[in-house]
Amino acid sequence: MEAVVLLSGGLDSSTVLAMAIKEHHLNPEEIVCLSLNYGQKHSVEMQASHDVAMFYGCQFVHKQLDPSIFASDKSSLTGSEPMPELSYKEIAEGEGVSPTYVPFRNANLLSTATALGLGLGVHSVYFGAHAEDARGWAYPDCTPEFIGAMANAIFIGTYYKVRLVTPIEWFMKKDIVKKGLELDVPYELTHSCYEGLKPACGKCPTCVERLEGFRLNGVEDPIPYLLEEDRV
Amino acid sequence: MEAVVLLSGGLDSSTVLAMAIKEHHLNPEEIVCLSLNYGQKHSVEMQASHDVAMFYGCQFVHKQLDPSIFASDKSSLTGSEPMPELSYKEIAEGEGVSPTYVPFRNANLLSTATALGLGLGVHSVYFGAHAEDARGWAYPDCTPEFIGAMANAIFIGTYYKVRLVTPIEWFMKKDIVKKGLELDVPYELTHSCYEGLKPACGKCPTCVERLEGFRLNGVEDPIPYLLEEDRV
Repeated sequence: MEAVVLLSGGLDSSTVLAMAIKEHHLNPEEIVCLSLNYGQKHSVEMQASHDVAMFYGCQFVHKQLDPSIFASDKSSLTGSEPMPELSYKEIAEGEGVSPTYVPFRNANLLSTATALGLGLGVHSVYFGAHAEDARGWAYPDCTPEFIGAMANAIFIGTYYKVRLVTPIEWFMKKDIVKKGLELDVPYELTHSCYEGLKPACGKCPTCVERLEGFRLNGVEDPIPYLLEEDRV
Repeated sequence: MEAVVLLSGGLDSSTVLAMAIKEHHLNPEEIVCLSLNYGQKHSVEMQASHDVAMFYGCQFVHKQLDPSIFASDKSSLTGSEPMPELSYKEIAEGEGVSPTYVPFRNANLLSTATALGLGLGVHSVYFGAHAEDARGWAYPDCTPEFIGAMANAIFIGTYYKVRLVTPIEWFMKKDIVKKGLELDVPYELTHSCYEGLKPACGKCPTCVERLEGFRLNGVEDPIPYLLEEDRV
């Protein structure tokens, strides 16, 4: 295998998968798309992950992380806190810790992907962290500083065999959608809503940002939303 | 809680726990000793981890990582490869990848400990990587370079709430035993043998190094060995 792509089935990681294939010229059959369940509410995304992987003709692997590792926090992604009806920008300007931050989640996702990938002989782990998640320290485990540290840990800790690849690290959501539209990413197969709703809620932070990303590109998001009037 | 201590129940991590309590003056009741099973053969160490945690009056938590994440490798710690009867020095001078290296294991242990610890409000994660494991690149995920990268990832990725603490990072095994003897670590409760044998095999890399560590301190290792004549 050439690479592991962390594929949640959302807009960001699906775009990264398309970039790995169409821009970095990886053979889809040599890509393992890794879907990880860590107890998140939006498990409907796992079906989306599978569908996107199949669309591109990649391998698909699903693994479960022990949700109790992340359970003692107050994250509204995994816990009982209500989902905020805010944009990431509003979250970042608030008390400083995003209510949808899952404790050190991304290091756990990356460590799992690297361990699995090293056993499969891959040279790269692809990860869809982006600038909109990093902005204002909303998700510290999406920042360039975190990514740089993990890239070093991964390269060093695997005898220099595996690199971390983060092609949308400096993209805002509108840039990701633009890139994905250019690459014909099957956005109709993807799922983003943190509430795990299908049709999507249109109100949670990720729905708000996704809709805004399409709007700024002058294109309608192809997935259905619960309340069509919520489309921004 | 003040800290998570990754406690395998072996000599190294038990010494680190003693240092946290006796040198860094943490309250034992505010320490969570974390035992992680990742499919290793030497699961007898989990009993030792529990016993050492109880000796010091700490909290004890045991979690399971999905062993299939690490299973596709050839590591003799988790796979079907025979255990080498070599010292770490001989391994490091060999083909460059230790047969007991488990793919990116330590990043997975640290990421789990950090996620769990952050939910419990800790400020530190203690980790017993040491210079003998790092020497000659035997375990790249024990090197100062790896530790530095992970320390950054942990501090950044937790909103600057959690630090990685590695007090034996620059110790050889003889230094660890010396420190532990000074601090009256209950080495009779610890378990190191990679074969998971009790009495210990005396021949696997960790038995060889452990025995050597005691010998260089002029002290007899208090745990029993299978073949007393194997004691070096």
